[in-house]
Amino acid sequence: MGLFSKDIKTMDDLFVHTLRDMYYAENQIEKALPDMIEKASDPQLKQGFKSHLRETEGHVKRLEQVFRLHGAAAKGVDCPAIDGIIEEADDVAGEVDDTAVLDAALIAAAQAVEHYEISRYGSLIAWAKELGHNDSARLLKENLDEEKAADKKLTALAESKVNRRAA
Amino acid sequence: MGLFSKDIKTMDDLFVHTLRDMYYAENQIEKALPDMIEKASDPQLKQGFKSHLRETEGHVKRLEQVFRLHGAAAKGVDCPAIDGIIEEADDVAGEVDDTAVLDAALIAAAQAVEHYEISRYGSLIAWAKELGHNDSARLLKENLDEEKAADKKLTALAESKVNRRAA
Repeated sequence: MGLFSKDIKTMDDLFVHTLRDMYYAENQIEKALPDMIEKASDPQLKQGFKSHLRETEGHVKRLEQVFRLHGAAAKGVDCPAIDGIIEEADDVAGEVDDTAVLDAALIAAAQAVEHYEISRYGSLIAWAKELGHNDSARLLKENLDEEKAADKKLTALAESKVNRRAA
Repeated sequence: MGLFSKDIKTMDDLFVHTLRDMYYAENQIEKALPDMIEKASDPQLKQGFKSHLRETEGHVKRLEQVFRLHGAAAKGVDCPAIDGIIEEADDVAGEVDDTAVLDAALIAAAQAVEHYEISRYGSLIAWAKELGHNDSARLLKENLDEEKAADKKLTALAESKVNRRAA
């Protein structure tokens, strides 16, 4: 993630590093969502991605609040994980030759993104609590709850309609 | 993931493609775990990674059964997502200069891997059911359940001991 080796000496360093990883990730997701909105055919899926784009803008702002609370500069670090997840989403979408199957693939891609975020926010919240940063933990939990809700909505949409139409 | 564009024409193609993505991913995880076992200091974490390596070997075998049931060749496709997640795990581990903080970082890295797998197995199971492949769905569900259990165990270990020692 960073350029220099052995620059994470304390749990606090690890917390800030991972916060920067998520700051980069949320910004990349904000850039990727308009393309997913455009590719989606199902109106409910398109609308879902649009709502999640607005939520994602809010997540970036909440992360900036956490940086402020923490007295750390709000900046990103390279995050090969989210880059790889988004690259794979693009690759697969580019290979699908049917709009209904593409909707199913877009949902799976978005859920891989949600799960990455769920895991990272889970770690960040546990570390914030351990470090006594309860205000930061509360803000991060708001982001986590919205990611979990987005993931659940995608599952419901896939299972109630999109997968059936694609199969 | 694949080399040719528009080669996913049906839901069945998407299913096989994603199965190959997970086959590649599980094999990469099998290769990455010995390094994580070596880096872990906490004996319980080391043991947990060892158990998960054995489980991962079983996941590869179950995926091979699913390929057989499906009459498709058991082979992998490039998976930039898992490559990125593992690359990030290596990068972060290489930057941490304290064994207790490294254990916390290793747990977070492993949970990012688990969540990637949880999302992919979730999609594969939903698609298998929609396509009427209930035997495949059952096998994939066994892998999913073990990934979820591994994730829960890591959370418990982090919150009960590892994060406290690192903080």
